[in-house]
Amino acid sequence: MSDTGGRRARGGGAARRAERSAVSFETARFIERNIPNFEVLTAEAIEIIEHNAEKVLEEIGVNFVENPAALERWRQAGADVRGERVHIPRGLARKLCSTAPKSFVQHARNPERNVDIGGRNLVLAPVYGPPFVRDADGGRRYATIEDFRNFVKLGYMSKWLHHSGGTVCEPTDIAVNKRHLDMLLAHMTLSDKPYMGSVTAPERAADSVAMSKILFGDDFVDQNTVMTSLVNINSPMTFDGIMMGALEVYAVANQAAIVSPFIVGGAMAPVTVAGTLTQVLAEILAGVSYSQLVRPGAPVIAGAFVTSIDMNSGAPTFGTPEASLITYGAGQLVRRLGLPYRSAGAFCGSKLPDAQAAYESANSLNMGLLAGVNFMLHACGWLEGGLVSSYEKFVMDADQLGALHGLARGVSVDENAQALDAIAEVGPGGHYLGCAHTQANFKSAFWRSDLLDYKPFETWADEGSRDTQALAGERVKKLLADYQAPDLDEGKREALEAFVAKRKEEMPDAFV
Amino acid sequence: MSDTGGRRARGGGAARRAERSAVSFETARFIERNIPNFEVLTAEAIEIIEHNAEKVLEEIGVNFVENPAALERWRQAGADVRGERVHIPRGLARKLCSTAPKSFVQHARNPERNVDIGGRNLVLAPVYGPPFVRDADGGRRYATIEDFRNFVKLGYMSKWLHHSGGTVCEPTDIAVNKRHLDMLLAHMTLSDKPYMGSVTAPERAADSVAMSKILFGDDFVDQNTVMTSLVNINSPMTFDGIMMGALEVYAVANQAAIVSPFIVGGAMAPVTVAGTLTQVLAEILAGVSYSQLVRPGAPVIAGAFVTSIDMNSGAPTFGTPEASLITYGAGQLVRRLGLPYRSAGAFCGSKLPDAQAAYESANSLNMGLLAGVNFMLHACGWLEGGLVSSYEKFVMDADQLGALHGLARGVSVDENAQALDAIAEVGPGGHYLGCAHTQANFKSAFWRSDLLDYKPFETWADEGSRDTQALAGERVKKLLADYQAPDLDEGKREALEAFVAKRKEEMPDAFV
Repeated sequence: MSDTGGRRARGGGAARRAERSAVSFETARFIERNIPNFEVLTAEAIEIIEHNAEKVLEEIGVNFVENPAALERWRQAGADVRGERVHIPRGLARKLCSTAPKSFVQHARNPERNVDIGGRNLVLAPVYGPPFVRDADGGRRYATIEDFRNFVKLGYMSKWLHHSGGTVCEPTDIAVNKRHLDMLLAHMTLSDKPYMGSVTAPERAADSVAMSKILFGDDFVDQNTVMTSLVNINSPMTFDGIMMGALEVYAVANQAAIVSPFIVGGAMAPVTVAGTLTQVLAEILAGVSYSQLVRPGAPVIAGAFVTSIDMNSGAPTFGTPEASLITYGAGQLVRRLGLPYRSAGAFCGSKLPDAQAAYESANSLNMGLLAGVNFMLHACGWLEGGLVSSYEKFVMDADQLGALHGLARGVSVDENAQALDAIAEVGPGGHYLGCAHTQANFKSAFWRSDLLDYKPFETWADEGSRDTQALAGERVKKLLADYQAPDLDEGKREALEAFVAKRKEEMPDAFV
Repeated sequence: MSDTGGRRARGGGAARRAERSAVSFETARFIERNIPNFEVLTAEAIEIIEHNAEKVLEEIGVNFVENPAALERWRQAGADVRGERVHIPRGLARKLCSTAPKSFVQHARNPERNVDIGGRNLVLAPVYGPPFVRDADGGRRYATIEDFRNFVKLGYMSKWLHHSGGTVCEPTDIAVNKRHLDMLLAHMTLSDKPYMGSVTAPERAADSVAMSKILFGDDFVDQNTVMTSLVNINSPMTFDGIMMGALEVYAVANQAAIVSPFIVGGAMAPVTVAGTLTQVLAEILAGVSYSQLVRPGAPVIAGAFVTSIDMNSGAPTFGTPEASLITYGAGQLVRRLGLPYRSAGAFCGSKLPDAQAAYESANSLNMGLLAGVNFMLHACGWLEGGLVSSYEKFVMDADQLGALHGLARGVSVDENAQALDAIAEVGPGGHYLGCAHTQANFKSAFWRSDLLDYKPFETWADEGSRDTQALAGERVKKLLADYQAPDLDEGKREALEAFVAKRKEEMPDAFV
């Protein structure tokens, strides 16, 4: 599962491809960390939380709702099932989790964009789920399929984004039971990065598998993971039939699922960090175990979506220290399970892509890198607590993701990095601008923003005193104007479009 | 040096004082970290960098410019002095540094505001040095003494700021040779938090000591540290006579100095992280050693101001990954010297308190906490590469400092934090909003912003769709309107004012 098959994004093939095709955009390889993880839990704290999580599973149990087959699977595995409540004996869930792969490759239709999920890697994917979009020109409005396609295009053109994501916004102008078809078609045709499948109903998951088979071929999909899909747990400790139905479809097809508690601390979990971590671990253990009951070895990512509630207003809050502590701690617990870890994102509660949005998002992005996250959904574009996909913030966050790549490189101490010749050449009172070492290294030495303003004050003022939102708005327009679709075999495109048309004809529109 | 003398900010005395005095504002105790430091250097990397730094000191040497007394001190200590170049034999500097205290108390005139600098602590101080100020109403303009006083007031009223700082902006309407007097008078009378002394000339440092003796009493200043002052090194490896003259005055008076390389990577240091760390360590070793040659045991903080240059425009850049790696690494090297560490700040290059400013500042603030910084100058208010003190950004950053306090608390696993009763009470499918554990803990469970917007979209829109800068501008006005000076003995105030008046009479105005 962890074989990249020599399909390396930085290889000679990538360079040749870039040369011969004007429609190729540069995409950085997924992050391979050369820095340690930041860990906040002591050995004693880990022992207590792990003990308590097993106690919760055994004594309190978890609910598998409207899903008799799941209850039967649990019964056969040795759990004590009473009604829809599943009590999992101490040790059983951890043992079941052990069949899940430590890491896996998610294949993209362009093999140079394959991602290795797990280990010390970090794969970055865009915002998921907002029903609204916002930009400076049009304000806040319901998202449409045109918006959806625009965000897929922006994701394709974002150098530091490795993944096309899933529901980059909800195309509310398409019937609920059909929009997954248009969303998948957009990811498959407008981008060549890996993508996510539908989870809103088991049959939509089945459509996702069927369309992937058209794109990749039946055999390839049977033998490889080509989708990673988001299966939320209804915290506290409830696994609903629809989400589990989607998980079952994907597990059977050997496609990856993110099993992810959805935590708003104080509402869906206790107000304390240790209490929340206990519940999160119990939920991950139960959910990942269940995927392995469906198909041992099915690829799975252990997730934790973490925010906390503002006790004055009831609103969710983002970029807070409690969420950071939980995210750091959950990383430690997930690594001890030997699973890939999903968490973090460019989270914020702000209504605008302003300073609040950026403080909160930067707090969360840095935390995600340092927490050892392997798959970061919502890495760009998230606004207003996830209600809004913001055009400007998409490119603002996507630019900051470059800084994460730089930080993850860590510190080289090879002879060139030691730079002793440079220090000797320049000497006390000199400057390094023109020295040989600087000339040889300056192009790759520093990460550089493609968006932010580094100009002298006077130049900046002469050019209109633009703030970050204004610069980002201009970048959005330029990217969308420059967009060119990646090559796609015309037969596959026609087959995908035919599949979508046929499925749409088979169903009346539904709006729930 | 590390005795707090029972003067604890959270003690019963603080509570009683708050009750009986309407002019007291709440100030959090300095941060005592309960989380680890983030470390990016391997043992091998540390060994290489430490070896190379000693090689630089011995073979290349450092310059002590226009300072014959310093050269004589070095000669007597065993260095090889050639002209103004001091070659320090391997091992000598590290040995000299060993007499510096591991930590020290900086006393405030209100003992509840004393700070312990060193160990696992983090003391936060405001922006230092900008010649300009900016606010939304008045735009960007030269700073005046009125601005200076306003920033001191804002610092006094900022809960998460432990220190009044130094040159919170340059009062450009006062003669250069006299403005230190007005600045110190403002810190001493408008705030009761600890402050910094002047370093722009040895005689101004002497004035700072003299005024402190009026405020604290001669004996108290002789026996205690009441000032921490910023002594920059002219990187690469140059120690000028004026800065060293100030350092000498403070060391003789047993007052603390921050000995701080001023690094713009690519200009004043090599473009590589390891090369920069080598130079930074060599400069710290030489500078701290020199303070100990002047007076063994003099309190000192080893600093590192780190930014890098944009190789396209020559502008300094902030919040970049390379600066973070250097800051993390320098923390490790300084801790191995057993010294308090100064670095980080709310750094940004943006012209406005916008998203760019916040991304860059949040990157730097988080890095500072995790890097083990003990004294963070520029923790709020910094804008436009340090050219501007921003009113709005001052309160925006100061609010975010609260998040650092929350993160530093780490993870408790006591019985209340484990929350097993709450998980059992709520159970699968329930919610925690009304449970007993939430009711008992919600007030202290989550850090809460005093500035950022958490309101529902409709409420926010009805109230004028304000962005962070607008909210911050309102908060600035409210704080300045609510300001009340802390109590000060009238005799001391008159004596300070008389000292300032007398010193001003003794000197003609100078503007360099």
